[in-house]
Amino acid sequence: MENSRLTQQIAFVAEVDKLKDILRRSLVTASQRPEDSAEHSWHLALMAIVLEEYAAEPVDLIQVLRMLLVHDLVEIDAGDTFAYDITANQDRADREERAAERIFGLLPTEQREELRELWEEFEAASTPESRYANALDRLQPLLQNSRAKGVPWREHGVCRDQVMTRMEPVRTAMPALWPTVVEIIETGCREGHIKP
Amino acid sequence: MENSRLTQQIAFVAEVDKLKDILRRSLVTASQRPEDSAEHSWHLALMAIVLEEYAAEPVDLIQVLRMLLVHDLVEIDAGDTFAYDITANQDRADREERAAERIFGLLPTEQREELRELWEEFEAASTPESRYANALDRLQPLLQNSRAKGVPWREHGVCRDQVMTRMEPVRTAMPALWPTVVEIIETGCREGHIKP
Repeated sequence: MENSRLTQQIAFVAEVDKLKDILRRSLVTASQRPEDSAEHSWHLALMAIVLEEYAAEPVDLIQVLRMLLVHDLVEIDAGDTFAYDITANQDRADREERAAERIFGLLPTEQREELRELWEEFEAASTPESRYANALDRLQPLLQNSRAKGVPWREHGVCRDQVMTRMEPVRTAMPALWPTVVEIIETGCREGHIKP
Repeated sequence: MENSRLTQQIAFVAEVDKLKDILRRSLVTASQRPEDSAEHSWHLALMAIVLEEYAAEPVDLIQVLRMLLVHDLVEIDAGDTFAYDITANQDRADREERAAERIFGLLPTEQREELRELWEEFEAASTPESRYANALDRLQPLLQNSRAKGVPWREHGVCRDQVMTRMEPVRTAMPALWPTVVEIIETGCREGHIKP
């Protein structure tokens, strides 16, 4: 019984390794290769520690970290959906729902529920912790894209309004970062990386 | 003043992106490419959540996660030192000390101290949290190497005694995992991946 519990947990640990092969549109700055969702999740978690003082509401940091570490696991089956791809976003919820069922389903029952609830909390963005986590999830690719001279924006013809809408969670959950966000977007427009 | 504080923090967030380009000896299972230290750090942090019940002493999970997320940052300057490379390990401490000075030094003073202390706590392995974190840091590459049919072990002619010694932190900080560790090592020997 105990042994089968550990076997399930080790199987989950092996399975999540696949997140390292899920590529995003944003680039690693120095090597200019697409970053993967495991690297992205780590970057967000570290940002959550360093930028905690800018969360608009007090947050329980452990809950933020737990959420950020699991929030992209569904991409193992569902893939990373580019934020500005309208078609792919239409069936995203269905694909991710099935993925959550299978991937969290590898764990013993109460851990399965626990991790699934973290993912659902992140998706719902209905708590201070998940609003802060979502703001970081929007801020990080903005920083990566601006450091990559806007390559992902240019490749997909992204325009100013789209980025502003996408960054809305930062404005509400990390208002002190908003001037920085606006400055990055305006620079992106001025340099021709973002369409006006 | 406030603005310069945020500027420092954003510079740190940009700098740590480089951890995604630090390659380790262990492989990502499906793609069989070397994993990088950012992916490895994420994997450890997720393992810390899922395997917490096996920590020999009660741990404050937030401290474990904070430590795991920053523990490899010094590799940005110092590189990843392969555990079984005796020569490279001789000046490892010096190289990492200088790296910590520079990298954590990008942050505002009190955060610089805070993150540096996390790294020092991990290195000293003198608290229940850091002993658990170190055990995970040994366990994860063992799991990766066994799933990679021992390629990193074979490439470096690693022998049984070296792996057993390397895994010692797991025996003491996660004793319930020890039979699993021994079984993996014995299988590695039997299949010729680890020298007897």
